[in-house]
Amino acid sequence: MSAPASVEQHRPKVELPRTSESETLKKIRHTMSHVMAMAVQTLFPGTQVTIGPWIKQGFYYDFDSPQPFSEADLKAIKKEMVKIIKRKLPLIREQVSRPEAERRIQALKEPYKLEILAGLEDPITLYHLGDEWWDLCAGPHVESTADLNPKAFDLESVAGAYWRGDETKAQLQRIYGTAWETPEQLAEYKRRKEEALRRDHRKLGKELGLFIFSDLVGPGLPLWTPKGTLLRSLLEDFLKQEQVQRGYQPVVTPHIGRVDLFKTSGHWQKYKDDLFPMMGEQEDEGFVLKAMNCPFHIQIYKASLHSYRELPIRLAEFGTVYRYEQSGELGGLTRVRGFTQDDAHLFVTPEQLNDEFLKVVDLIQSVFRILRLDNFKARLSFRDPDSDKYIGSEDAWQKAEYAIQRAVETLGMDHFLGIGEAAFYGPKLDFIVQDALEREWQLGTVQVDYNLPERFDLEYVAEDGSRQRPVMIHRAPFGSLERLIGILIEEYAGDFPLWMAPIQAILLTVSDEQLPFAQQVASDLRLQGLRVEVDVSGDRLGKQIRNAEKAKIPVMAVIGAKEVESDSLNIRLRPAVDVGSLPVSQVAAILTQAVQNYSDWQTTAANLA
Amino acid sequence: MSAPASVEQHRPKVELPRTSESETLKKIRHTMSHVMAMAVQTLFPGTQVTIGPWIKQGFYYDFDSPQPFSEADLKAIKKEMVKIIKRKLPLIREQVSRPEAERRIQALKEPYKLEILAGLEDPITLYHLGDEWWDLCAGPHVESTADLNPKAFDLESVAGAYWRGDETKAQLQRIYGTAWETPEQLAEYKRRKEEALRRDHRKLGKELGLFIFSDLVGPGLPLWTPKGTLLRSLLEDFLKQEQVQRGYQPVVTPHIGRVDLFKTSGHWQKYKDDLFPMMGEQEDEGFVLKAMNCPFHIQIYKASLHSYRELPIRLAEFGTVYRYEQSGELGGLTRVRGFTQDDAHLFVTPEQLNDEFLKVVDLIQSVFRILRLDNFKARLSFRDPDSDKYIGSEDAWQKAEYAIQRAVETLGMDHFLGIGEAAFYGPKLDFIVQDALEREWQLGTVQVDYNLPERFDLEYVAEDGSRQRPVMIHRAPFGSLERLIGILIEEYAGDFPLWMAPIQAILLTVSDEQLPFAQQVASDLRLQGLRVEVDVSGDRLGKQIRNAEKAKIPVMAVIGAKEVESDSLNIRLRPAVDVGSLPVSQVAAILTQAVQNYSDWQTTAANLA
Repeated sequence: MSAPASVEQHRPKVELPRTSESETLKKIRHTMSHVMAMAVQTLFPGTQVTIGPWIKQGFYYDFDSPQPFSEADLKAIKKEMVKIIKRKLPLIREQVSRPEAERRIQALKEPYKLEILAGLEDPITLYHLGDEWWDLCAGPHVESTADLNPKAFDLESVAGAYWRGDETKAQLQRIYGTAWETPEQLAEYKRRKEEALRRDHRKLGKELGLFIFSDLVGPGLPLWTPKGTLLRSLLEDFLKQEQVQRGYQPVVTPHIGRVDLFKTSGHWQKYKDDLFPMMGEQEDEGFVLKAMNCPFHIQIYKASLHSYRELPIRLAEFGTVYRYEQSGELGGLTRVRGFTQDDAHLFVTPEQLNDEFLKVVDLIQSVFRILRLDNFKARLSFRDPDSDKYIGSEDAWQKAEYAIQRAVETLGMDHFLGIGEAAFYGPKLDFIVQDALEREWQLGTVQVDYNLPERFDLEYVAEDGSRQRPVMIHRAPFGSLERLIGILIEEYAGDFPLWMAPIQAILLTVSDEQLPFAQQVASDLRLQGLRVEVDVSGDRLGKQIRNAEKAKIPVMAVIGAKEVESDSLNIRLRPAVDVGSLPVSQVAAILTQAVQNYSDWQTTAANLA
Repeated sequence: MSAPASVEQHRPKVELPRTSESETLKKIRHTMSHVMAMAVQTLFPGTQVTIGPWIKQGFYYDFDSPQPFSEADLKAIKKEMVKIIKRKLPLIREQVSRPEAERRIQALKEPYKLEILAGLEDPITLYHLGDEWWDLCAGPHVESTADLNPKAFDLESVAGAYWRGDETKAQLQRIYGTAWETPEQLAEYKRRKEEALRRDHRKLGKELGLFIFSDLVGPGLPLWTPKGTLLRSLLEDFLKQEQVQRGYQPVVTPHIGRVDLFKTSGHWQKYKDDLFPMMGEQEDEGFVLKAMNCPFHIQIYKASLHSYRELPIRLAEFGTVYRYEQSGELGGLTRVRGFTQDDAHLFVTPEQLNDEFLKVVDLIQSVFRILRLDNFKARLSFRDPDSDKYIGSEDAWQKAEYAIQRAVETLGMDHFLGIGEAAFYGPKLDFIVQDALEREWQLGTVQVDYNLPERFDLEYVAEDGSRQRPVMIHRAPFGSLERLIGILIEEYAGDFPLWMAPIQAILLTVSDEQLPFAQQVASDLRLQGLRVEVDVSGDRLGKQIRNAEKAKIPVMAVIGAKEVESDSLNIRLRPAVDVGSLPVSQVAAILTQAVQNYSDWQTTAANLA
């Protein structure tokens, strides 16, 4: 039996500096863009340069060139850039008068620069690369191209771009490059880029047949295939079970409501532009698609008078909401127009706030652990004490922020402060998850809210018989089911843990003679709640294995004459663990156990060993 | 142990004639309205009469009277009517010229009649009651008030009504009455009316806390409380399980789609007015709330090329759809603006149509049986051979109608033909369910569709490699989950069978001393999947029982010192079956069994006996 393959294990860890946090990196990239522009004008005389900033992963420059740059051109440009870098040219800043700048531009015959100049405020500065090349530029730059590592950059692609981003104006050629401090960083960046491509949930979602998009239905509105729907239900059922055990009560509410509902909640005034356009002509008769579930849950709370003895009341709904994102912003599952929130609203007495908040955070933590999203931090999004945009009393804010602080400290969570990140109506705690590629995603969120109870005049009967105002907690561990699934697909690279895999095991037969046995075993395993299929294609074993690999089915069970005779299965686990032959009953027991425990495949493999 | 109470059992069966089918009943009611008008004008001189037709349950007349009629007035009017009836006055039809009619109306000083006359076509007819009273009327009537049974009618209520239904015009007083052929029919009508009131799902839904409506959310948009949501999930899970066993595959699709989607399907052109108003200004960029799921399921089918080997493909979704019913038409759950269809679309080869249709009908039949809606008939909604409104080939229609006919005959179902009731694109089979009050409801429906596969250009690869067009079957056993729940609440009068009851059993204690035992038993029963609560109110036993009765919890288990000692429960089943003391383990086994078998309470009681 071979050990689990783990190519990742011994890779030396390379940290990539965050562009936004490294001034050095910004300077390197900015200078690289100038070097590229100089190289282009050297190789392609007559090409005009326009603008060339640093960006998140590198830099670009927009050129006005009579014909598109080819792959071969990029190679030549890169070669020329290496030459320039090796010449150790100084970067020299020069301040000039506006007329002088105009005179120099006229001499270059680059009219774009005149337009740029017109938009600049005084003082006007130029940056020279040695004494051969210059551009209008505010800097900053490295001191000399000697500070650039010729082995730590690359040119990546060419794309069309309009001058000033205006499609009625001239079309330019944009060359994208990437640049880092060291060749190791460049290699790590390229590795991550390739890995991200391999894990891209849009690509994997298609290959694994989980969801589709349809032009006729509209952008940002995923349709879930049977396999994707199964994945959704498994996640929903998992969370539902955790929630019901903790006293949450599922409810179901409509996807539309009258404009008046959202006026009462204040969402209409604050978030109108994020909503789909109103249905109907007049606001007082109009309906809108819901972008949040809270006002609906509040209606259920408000439908009867509650005693303090009933509180906390925890109303939960996998509520599908719709937000009118610009269609240019949509892509895959991480940014959509329709998504299902694993939403709940808790109505608590002020005295219950601390404990209840703690329980919510504890739930979210345990959910993330089971999903193997172990690498998360909590951002305590508090108010900016110098701002006056917040509503609610000083006392309420202090209590709410205390409840959050106390919860993360009690649970010993990694956390950091986000001053000024609070909602206007209350502070919140956001879960920031880092994925396998060290990208950060905001998933779950918990908010304390004193505002909606006020706006909807919510009450409960206190022990002394008086009417009191409850506090609300909004919370969604997944945030959005769609987004979570997108992130999980990438995190697992499509290799779902056993409990989540749409097909958990596939039985492959050496020849058709073993098919009746395979069908019997499949049927037995299904009775134990496992999702099992039999490959009945009649393909040769090698092809059956390749197909199962491609479908990323976690457990392959090969059946030959020997297995039929001994009532056993020859087990192979993805990725790449040969377990060998085991009795059918033992396989069933271990798999059932692994599902119940939400085990990862390593644990499952160890148990099968 | 007492026998199950069954007050209904020995009640003699009285059939109520359908008004729409009984000419006699129409005449009786029409004449009754004249008798009432004569009585009113006798008792309240100066009152003007306007119109007075027969209606479904009786008749009414609209009066212009200076003040509203009181309850006492109704009694007096009824008494006067009995007098008139007993005088055996003949009903005499008289044809008059328009000027003659005008002259007689002028003499009466009833200007409303002039307006009515203006709207009548020639010939103008009057009906006389003896020689004392007449009205403009086309008839028909009974020959004499001797044909009216003074013990077979009643006056029911007074309501305001505007002249011509126009609220800018005079307000009139409408008196409603009911009238039948025999006193037995009247009694049966009253019994049913009272029973319907007792079973009214709007009333019971509120009392049992199943759903609410909210003015802010909007009319016809129910919000489901935790108990109602549980009921929904139980029904959904039940059907899902039946469906998955039959090879259905759940999918999830958005609640909105581009207008173009519904133009392609043809729904936009045919049903635009039934949709909520479009979101957005222009049709080519607009979105609409979905009123049906088919176009979405088709997108999933169409996303990949299917082989004949994969068919039938059965895509199922509990899809919430929205239809813009006039708000005046809305009431409770049986007519709503948002509802969840237990929808599925089957994509089959033409050769598979017969068998697949049979399977669908078989599924619906077994679902209705389990829901104890045993009293149903199938309407075969076929095309009218004389009409040309249908699309599709003669051959396709014949095959589709044959598939339907064959299915109901093979399954030996009660059925009747509905010629001309087909959709324009294909025939259908509708399930008409009769409830405990002999009211008829259309629930499940199955449709054969050759149209949408054509409009969306659907294909599959046939055995010979050619591309062929699949046939679609639309089907929804429940029809709408909301409507079904409304009907079930009334059918069961709130007494849900054990498997569907939100709370299945409640443990009541004689004193607080038994509470720890009760909590332990509840916890054990919950582990076995039963929904059990303990009454911890500290109320006296009598009050605990009354509360449990009111909440219609099917099983009450009373625990006193004796029960604790013998580890048993004193069981009382709703409605009104005392079972006596049974060991806890036996109760658990019988209840679990009853849930699994979807047993009704009689069977459960018999098993507990």
